[in-house]
Amino acid sequence: MLLLRTTDADFEAKFARVVRDRRESDAQVGRDVASILNEVRERGDKALVEYTTRFDGHNLSGDDSWSISKEACEKAYHAIDAELREALETAAARIRAYHEGQLPEDRDYTDSIGMRLGARWSAVEAAGLYVPGGRAAYPSSLLMNAIPAKVAGVDRLVVTTPTPKGEVNELVLAAAHVAEVDEIWRVGGAQAVAALAYGTQRIERVDVITGPGNAWVAEAKRQLYGVVGIDMVAGPSEILVIADGKNDPDWIAADLMSQAEHDPTSQSILITDDARFAAQVEDAVDIALMKLPTAKTAKLSWDDHGLIVVVDTLDDAIPLADRLAAEHVEIAVDDPEPLFAKLRHAGSVFLGRNTPEAVGDYIAGPNHVLPTGRRARFASGLSVLDFMKRTSFIGASPDALAAIGPAAVRLAEAEGLPAHALSISKRLP
Amino acid sequence: MLLLRTTDADFEAKFARVVRDRRESDAQVGRDVASILNEVRERGDKALVEYTTRFDGHNLSGDDSWSISKEACEKAYHAIDAELREALETAAARIRAYHEGQLPEDRDYTDSIGMRLGARWSAVEAAGLYVPGGRAAYPSSLLMNAIPAKVAGVDRLVVTTPTPKGEVNELVLAAAHVAEVDEIWRVGGAQAVAALAYGTQRIERVDVITGPGNAWVAEAKRQLYGVVGIDMVAGPSEILVIADGKNDPDWIAADLMSQAEHDPTSQSILITDDARFAAQVEDAVDIALMKLPTAKTAKLSWDDHGLIVVVDTLDDAIPLADRLAAEHVEIAVDDPEPLFAKLRHAGSVFLGRNTPEAVGDYIAGPNHVLPTGRRARFASGLSVLDFMKRTSFIGASPDALAAIGPAAVRLAEAEGLPAHALSISKRLP
Repeated sequence: MLLLRTTDADFEAKFARVVRDRRESDAQVGRDVASILNEVRERGDKALVEYTTRFDGHNLSGDDSWSISKEACEKAYHAIDAELREALETAAARIRAYHEGQLPEDRDYTDSIGMRLGARWSAVEAAGLYVPGGRAAYPSSLLMNAIPAKVAGVDRLVVTTPTPKGEVNELVLAAAHVAEVDEIWRVGGAQAVAALAYGTQRIERVDVITGPGNAWVAEAKRQLYGVVGIDMVAGPSEILVIADGKNDPDWIAADLMSQAEHDPTSQSILITDDARFAAQVEDAVDIALMKLPTAKTAKLSWDDHGLIVVVDTLDDAIPLADRLAAEHVEIAVDDPEPLFAKLRHAGSVFLGRNTPEAVGDYIAGPNHVLPTGRRARFASGLSVLDFMKRTSFIGASPDALAAIGPAAVRLAEAEGLPAHALSISKRLP
Repeated sequence: MLLLRTTDADFEAKFARVVRDRRESDAQVGRDVASILNEVRERGDKALVEYTTRFDGHNLSGDDSWSISKEACEKAYHAIDAELREALETAAARIRAYHEGQLPEDRDYTDSIGMRLGARWSAVEAAGLYVPGGRAAYPSSLLMNAIPAKVAGVDRLVVTTPTPKGEVNELVLAAAHVAEVDEIWRVGGAQAVAALAYGTQRIERVDVITGPGNAWVAEAKRQLYGVVGIDMVAGPSEILVIADGKNDPDWIAADLMSQAEHDPTSQSILITDDARFAAQVEDAVDIALMKLPTAKTAKLSWDDHGLIVVVDTLDDAIPLADRLAAEHVEIAVDDPEPLFAKLRHAGSVFLGRNTPEAVGDYIAGPNHVLPTGRRARFASGLSVLDFMKRTSFIGASPDALAAIGPAAVRLAEAEGLPAHALSISKRLP
């Protein structure tokens, strides 16, 4: 963990290094992924069989080994603990309600010269969701990706997930039942992303691919951007807590550890105006790490990427927060509004002392798929818009064309595009 | 030009080949671009100087050779033909009015359990627009990219454009004045895109890069997606005209040629239910090509990629149009509404006999930067949203946290994330 004070002589240099640090994948991953994508594109299911044997120790042979049926998902749903089932349903209902409010409105109007103008939104036909296997197989991620797609109106919702040595995650299947997933394919990694983008003999291609994954999955999505739509380029998780000295250090320590436990490359940052509180949180983290079952991962993250910045006043925290453009920002003060009003770049903000980031991961309603790695400067969290697209339209009456057509002819001629000009001038009176 | 009838025995195979055909860049471009990006990232301005000398024959030495001042743009604006100046102003005003209607609304509400939820939109700080030099230096493209950025509220709007052998395009400068561009840098190609994304000693980095360009520029944007936001992966232009036999064949021929004249890789397609009309359009294209100053390019495009499909009824055109997911779709019939209602995938639609696509290129108001290469299946035209991002927020009262916190704790525990669970349970009564 790095402790900085804005009054330190070398603060700017050290903070700039934190902002620049990308904690992301290397060129070798790029080359490996390019080769996998090419194999799946050329050889389809045969390549999937080979990679799945090699990477997952799972043999794709009969239909059951290739996919998981809706019936199996329903069975898993009924088999899990009743309280857990209810928690999944509560989460799904709240996520659905929040995302329904994102559905965009169409436009259709006629302007003063008689030109009809507008835009119409429609859903993509098919969406593919990547669901990681093993440690990072999160039913909450399935809900957060699948529900916006369903709310958007996608016809076909396809999940791919690795089943290492044939093992399936019952909780993920139960979540797939809740979210009404249409197909689940038992393939993972870059090869699964390639199958979704290009299609194979068994797996029909989709239009948009979303969902978290390891470095290979993220790189596959990046390389296939343009062949399909993707949600975003995702990196390791981050939390930035802006807190005054009146918080319980244990609460803030738990918030910092809730990101650190995700992955050794996760980053947890505290900015406070109270040096004594900073020291208390540091101690509370050390104590928490003694008891936490995920301490091994959390400690690696905290040691390598943890950061505490002591500022003069919390107003000074805002320009630093904008430079970090963090995925999650907690503002743990009595009245978070003035600070929140000044903050420009953040994926999601958690207001006040009673809003731990984790409540947003599961159940509050907004999406937990958020921009990482300083990308909140230009990117947004996942929404129904990621599963929709907009078609603009124009309808000119003869009068409307006569009113503005000549100006368009002039511009077309000036650009050296005579057929453009002709297509208008032929229609003018 | 290829002529197909849906009644032909091999129609499906031939049409499927058209749909699959991507007309896009190859792997060598990818490798060249990767090397250019790396050089600019490592060596900054020095690399820009070398590439600009080599590719543009332009020597970057003093300040004037690096950039074009706002004063020079204003001078160009006053120097151009008055009618052209007025046409630029009309176009800008109409584009601005249409895009102002795209500004999204923030959300902020408290739900039934007392949880405050919402989302707040904000503009990116800086946007970079690529403006091609030479043949494809279009003032209309500058307006179509710059105005949405300004409407979004971007602080800093930066143009890069090559000036081959030092030559500048006065019309582009005039458009930059109209659109209130803040900086213009005289660099082009993949090296300009790299400078915008990474920043150099002279050029400060931006958050989003948009604008058309050749295969190298398009590939540079694709490779830098994630480092910055980009508008889209753009390919060659396309038009699909759906027309009955009651149109003037000369009008439709001009519409087809208006895309064909852009580039030899452009694609113009007519779908009609009238075989006699199809033959008339074919003849009208041949006659148009005899007179058109851009005939050389248009003929290459029409010969290699032109397509006429004769269908039984125009209803049969719609599933074919959805498979093509064309950038521009004209529906040239008396009442376009029933066909338009059935169409799902298109970048922009031009309704009725009096709406040539070119009116949308310049002056109607909607954006002319649209998804190509079948990407209208999942992508939308450029809008103010490309220059904005959304921050979601959550504010829990103690009661709200008590109401749903336990369900979140249950899910966190089931996912094996104990610090997530603790950060909530510590705050529960």
